[in-house]
Amino acid sequence: MVFEQIESALHPRSIAIAGASDNPLSMGYHFLHYLIDYGYPGDIYPINHNRRLISGLRTYPTLREVPGPIDYVICCLPASRVLDFLEDCPQKKVKTIQLFTARLSETGDKDAILLENQILKKAIEFGIRLIGPNCMGIYHPKMGIYFGYDLPEESGPVGMFFQSGGVSAGFIRYASLQGVRFSKVISFGNGLDFNESDYLEYFTQDPETKVIASYIEGTKDGRRFLKTLRQATPLKPVIVLKSGRSKAGIRTASSHTAALAGSQNIWESGMRQAGAIQARTLEEMIDLVVSFYFLPPIFGRNVGIVGGSGGRGVISADEWEEAGFRVIPLPPEIRKLVKEVSPELWWKWIENPIDMSMLPDYALKRNFLKLMMENPSFDFIVANLDTDAPLGKDEMINHFKGDIDDIVEIKNKSKKPLIAVLSTGSLGIDDFKSWRWRLIAEQKTRLVDNRIPVYPSLSQAASALNHLVEYYQRKETR
Amino acid sequence: MVFEQIESALHPRSIAIAGASDNPLSMGYHFLHYLIDYGYPGDIYPINHNRRLISGLRTYPTLREVPGPIDYVICCLPASRVLDFLEDCPQKKVKTIQLFTARLSETGDKDAILLENQILKKAIEFGIRLIGPNCMGIYHPKMGIYFGYDLPEESGPVGMFFQSGGVSAGFIRYASLQGVRFSKVISFGNGLDFNESDYLEYFTQDPETKVIASYIEGTKDGRRFLKTLRQATPLKPVIVLKSGRSKAGIRTASSHTAALAGSQNIWESGMRQAGAIQARTLEEMIDLVVSFYFLPPIFGRNVGIVGGSGGRGVISADEWEEAGFRVIPLPPEIRKLVKEVSPELWWKWIENPIDMSMLPDYALKRNFLKLMMENPSFDFIVANLDTDAPLGKDEMINHFKGDIDDIVEIKNKSKKPLIAVLSTGSLGIDDFKSWRWRLIAEQKTRLVDNRIPVYPSLSQAASALNHLVEYYQRKETR
Repeated sequence: MVFEQIESALHPRSIAIAGASDNPLSMGYHFLHYLIDYGYPGDIYPINHNRRLISGLRTYPTLREVPGPIDYVICCLPASRVLDFLEDCPQKKVKTIQLFTARLSETGDKDAILLENQILKKAIEFGIRLIGPNCMGIYHPKMGIYFGYDLPEESGPVGMFFQSGGVSAGFIRYASLQGVRFSKVISFGNGLDFNESDYLEYFTQDPETKVIASYIEGTKDGRRFLKTLRQATPLKPVIVLKSGRSKAGIRTASSHTAALAGSQNIWESGMRQAGAIQARTLEEMIDLVVSFYFLPPIFGRNVGIVGGSGGRGVISADEWEEAGFRVIPLPPEIRKLVKEVSPELWWKWIENPIDMSMLPDYALKRNFLKLMMENPSFDFIVANLDTDAPLGKDEMINHFKGDIDDIVEIKNKSKKPLIAVLSTGSLGIDDFKSWRWRLIAEQKTRLVDNRIPVYPSLSQAASALNHLVEYYQRKETR
Repeated sequence: MVFEQIESALHPRSIAIAGASDNPLSMGYHFLHYLIDYGYPGDIYPINHNRRLISGLRTYPTLREVPGPIDYVICCLPASRVLDFLEDCPQKKVKTIQLFTARLSETGDKDAILLENQILKKAIEFGIRLIGPNCMGIYHPKMGIYFGYDLPEESGPVGMFFQSGGVSAGFIRYASLQGVRFSKVISFGNGLDFNESDYLEYFTQDPETKVIASYIEGTKDGRRFLKTLRQATPLKPVIVLKSGRSKAGIRTASSHTAALAGSQNIWESGMRQAGAIQARTLEEMIDLVVSFYFLPPIFGRNVGIVGGSGGRGVISADEWEEAGFRVIPLPPEIRKLVKEVSPELWWKWIENPIDMSMLPDYALKRNFLKLMMENPSFDFIVANLDTDAPLGKDEMINHFKGDIDDIVEIKNKSKKPLIAVLSTGSLGIDDFKSWRWRLIAEQKTRLVDNRIPVYPSLSQAASALNHLVEYYQRKETR
């Protein structure tokens, strides 16, 4: 029932924008333009008392004048006008309203809380479901429904429900730099009607969603949410970032989405027991989404590390072991092969992590990566990439491109999971001109295009993979 | 004595490159070119048996043929030739040799260890000091001495000694994106002669160094190092990243720089007692260097946070409180002023962190930041910057630039410390064309140019500031 209702909300044949506007500083302007600019294929009805035309579209004074039925309404009206507006909805067969409208329970104001309750009551009476209030609603690229500009136009398998609109748009933009694409994202604000459990149920059943991620400030019904989680996690990985963890965080969450943040300890242990993957920061959530997006299940903890200078090798060994992995010694069969191919090399001395700067021969580097990828002792391989070698521009470009060529080619021929660690740097505008940062950016794009997950730091990679292996190990033993 | 010797090594009047080469894949080529390309002002003597001219410079078959005295030698010879080479040094009055030469004790090979000992013995006999072996040596931009290309040409107050050459070059490049500049950086590899304590002593006394950072895999003399640290930390912040923490890390460190990593627990508590600031990752070390580089001492933990959407406000509140700060409620005098200026605003409801998206009026946003900066309740202010608002390109550019204008202007008029949190994103090559990422990169550059520290994430900012306040509080109570 809930699945069908949310599915219907996500596939409206017509959308009305209540409070449509031609002022580019108002959201009644932008919600309309998202639909126009991103090619929403259904009927669009701007609603505004004082205009006959907005952005070239015929505009209606009220919902009542709209000719056909209306599946979905984006409501940008002030809170005080919502109850009246609702009265017009039943005759147009409105199924879902997204309330961008805010200043309701999140203000803590008694009258505003009362008004929010009345809105819910009337919606129930009319059989209309609500997304929000105080939310940005839907990003559904396949349907041309957007809640911001510059969001990817292609779809992908990540489904998300976020209590914050700004955070969700930011998340989509930063994660999309790593190649992540989304099935549907719902920003749901105060979660007055459809709530976190409804959305989780939806994404659990949605065949277009393989990975679920959620940002939550507080649950409407914690018990139901944990129960829904328990049903979801054996089927799909569910990554949750819970904010409102500290005193000040709880206070802020309450004035942002009227969230009752609850006890953090109870939340964390409940989430763990339900098999959810808990992220503590947005950056960590991006790493987790990247991991589950690109990688097959990994069940073991033996890691092979190639590339990076000696120092980076030492740091890698620490990071992976501290995250619970085993940086196993180089298997003797690899050492033996190296000795045969290159007897003058310090084959006794070469170790996992492989210090690639030690390998004199280019073909040997390539060979090494291949040997590591083929060796069954390793559960997955980490390519440690940097441009730290003391070479000049031309050699650096050659080397770096050559390394990426090999990684891409070998990865595409192998079933072994491979990840890359490469920091693109925190670039200022002049850095865009530098060959080094452009080289890194160019090769990072190649990695992403070849479905290789790229992490900005060793510690972030190790932490994300730890969660990934934990998830699949748990799933396996269940 | 050690200070004078290292000072002399850093200011040579002449440099010979033993093993100079015209092959761009060899370091004998690059060490020579660093000096030529970056304008080292002293005499440069390439040494090579088989060439009369390298890169346009007269080349000498051995040191003996060089006309004048030689202060400093960069030795790129294979290990087996170093003892013989040393014999030529006394008559040319060589004071310091940087041994890029490797394959010594770090290989674990008995003969190589023996050879390393003989090299040290002979150097002592000749009164010659050694940097390395197995190291990249000196980056001293004021003197035109480099150990890599694309390192900043301006100097700054950060002095560093790193056991890894690759890690130090990488660190310099990534940190310089955040505006950090360096007095001198020494990559010292195995630390056979000058060791970690010598360098720490040097940087403690060096008037050009205000902040010290170090990457260490293992100490030659742990007791002396802790003693030197205890003397250093009351004078200058000393940030240390210790690798070789895990079993695999210790094994790797030993084969990288022959480091004896020692017990991590003893190390950590010793470092803490000595007042050092411990970084666990290179990224954290960059944040710490940025903090001590740009910020004045901060002794209190009351933080005021402005900007960012509601969700980002909740996340901020959590991050800062979890890092030990107090996100205090908005001081009543600010609330009162807001009420007077803008009675129609939800002045009762506005809180710290300030959700700037709630402020309808542009002048009001500016005013708010000013009020926060002027209010004595806050020890410092965090500007939470993002382009997550659902606006279009033109409004977004206007808003974002306007916000940065205000931040820069107000910061330049105020003594209160101000930091910015802004993620520039992990850009692929096509993203360089996007107006959004260019806008962010452009404004990040403005912040850095105005000496505002920029952190890529909330959690990184909070963790770095926690270390900073701890350092100054400890210093104050001593």
